[in-house]
Amino acid sequence: MNKPTIECCLSPALIDLYNVEESNVVIIDIFRATSTIAAALGNGANKIIPVDDVQECIKLGTEIENSVTAGERNGQIAEGLQYGNSPSTYKADFIEGKNLVLTTTNGTRLLYKVKHAQEIISGAFLNLGATAQYLAKQNKPLILACASWKDRFNLEDTLFAGALYDQLQDVYDTDCDSMRAAHHLYLLAKNDIFEFLRDGAHFNRLKNYGLTDDLKYCCKVDAHNNLIKFQNGELRIF
Amino acid sequence: MNKPTIECCLSPALIDLYNVEESNVVIIDIFRATSTIAAALGNGANKIIPVDDVQECIKLGTEIENSVTAGERNGQIAEGLQYGNSPSTYKADFIEGKNLVLTTTNGTRLLYKVKHAQEIISGAFLNLGATAQYLAKQNKPLILACASWKDRFNLEDTLFAGALYDQLQDVYDTDCDSMRAAHHLYLLAKNDIFEFLRDGAHFNRLKNYGLTDDLKYCCKVDAHNNLIKFQNGELRIF
Repeated sequence: MNKPTIECCLSPALIDLYNVEESNVVIIDIFRATSTIAAALGNGANKIIPVDDVQECIKLGTEIENSVTAGERNGQIAEGLQYGNSPSTYKADFIEGKNLVLTTTNGTRLLYKVKHAQEIISGAFLNLGATAQYLAKQNKPLILACASWKDRFNLEDTLFAGALYDQLQDVYDTDCDSMRAAHHLYLLAKNDIFEFLRDGAHFNRLKNYGLTDDLKYCCKVDAHNNLIKFQNGELRIF
Repeated sequence: MNKPTIECCLSPALIDLYNVEESNVVIIDIFRATSTIAAALGNGANKIIPVDDVQECIKLGTEIENSVTAGERNGQIAEGLQYGNSPSTYKADFIEGKNLVLTTTNGTRLLYKVKHAQEIISGAFLNLGATAQYLAKQNKPLILACASWKDRFNLEDTLFAGALYDQLQDVYDTDCDSMRAAHHLYLLAKNDIFEFLRDGAHFNRLKNYGLTDDLKYCCKVDAHNNLIKFQNGELRIF
């Protein structure tokens, strides 16, 4: 039997080159949307409603019971929202049973770009293992879609794509140079991902906001090891 | 004094994210446009006129004295043209003193996308050294622009960007993750670039057309070590 294909898309600006409709898609926004999603759901949030607009986020926050509005623009809490995009904010004693309405610069935008995919899975180092385990059993083309930074390639999302490929390479086939490059980079970085990323553009941007601990947290492998899917406008654990 | 910046653009589809107008741009199409350009000029071609359209190529071929029309679509000689995009075709006894009118799938298209740059330089492994030497003395922002394959990231162009950065890192500053990734990949590959690329998507595409020797040739460092610029619609040695 032929193996399904795996490809990596390095920027939302390139997503139209891929056959999204017939594929499963993993959305990847390590710093920090998909890490925040993994932490909040892992710590007991009921569901997450990603929206691409701050006003919509505020509006939904008033309509949905037991909700928290959160999000950032350019790495900082967006005006009018209650919380930011910091995974360490969403501890169990705060988030358990709540509905999180979330908007971020890159992650939620990407999510709506791939909305016609067969399945949409949210991936981060925090839930790498569960994500890989699930995907290893799906016999469908797979696209690893990096949220990047305002359409620019970034190292952290690419490393995660490489990490996922590392666990899936026996069950998927690839003829995608982005996938090969991501894997090469992951193998270089895997002994200390945080250290490797210290020289990254977005790392330095967020570090300047005092977010170094947050970034360290985003590099923790399998700390909230759940499979997360986007279905009917909501992100949930499956 | 502040150093000028260096950035890497991994696909023509991302070039609008960069400030082309205020920068020098190196166009990179290792398999094979910029390698063919380096070989043809290195072997004595008078000039190369890149055009983005096969019909325009044929037309100019009839108008320009002492000209040769050449080019490919999808890796093979385009219908109506005399020669392909194979650097090894352009030996001195054939190309010396001639004017080459050239069209390729990715390379010439990129060239016209960056036409408003301060200076446009054509780079390939075949003329890496001369290109680096010239750029080391320019105090202007620099963009290394990969032609890629139909807007998809490819390994060979990225490795060359990394090789160029390797020679320029002391004189330029970067905060570009694509540049960092390209450099990491180059350092992995540098001992045997051809071997590293054996697993590349476009390598395999061209190998299937019987072009393995051609690809090996494109990986030769400094075999035609000239600085090549695009000015007034023409590529020439400077």
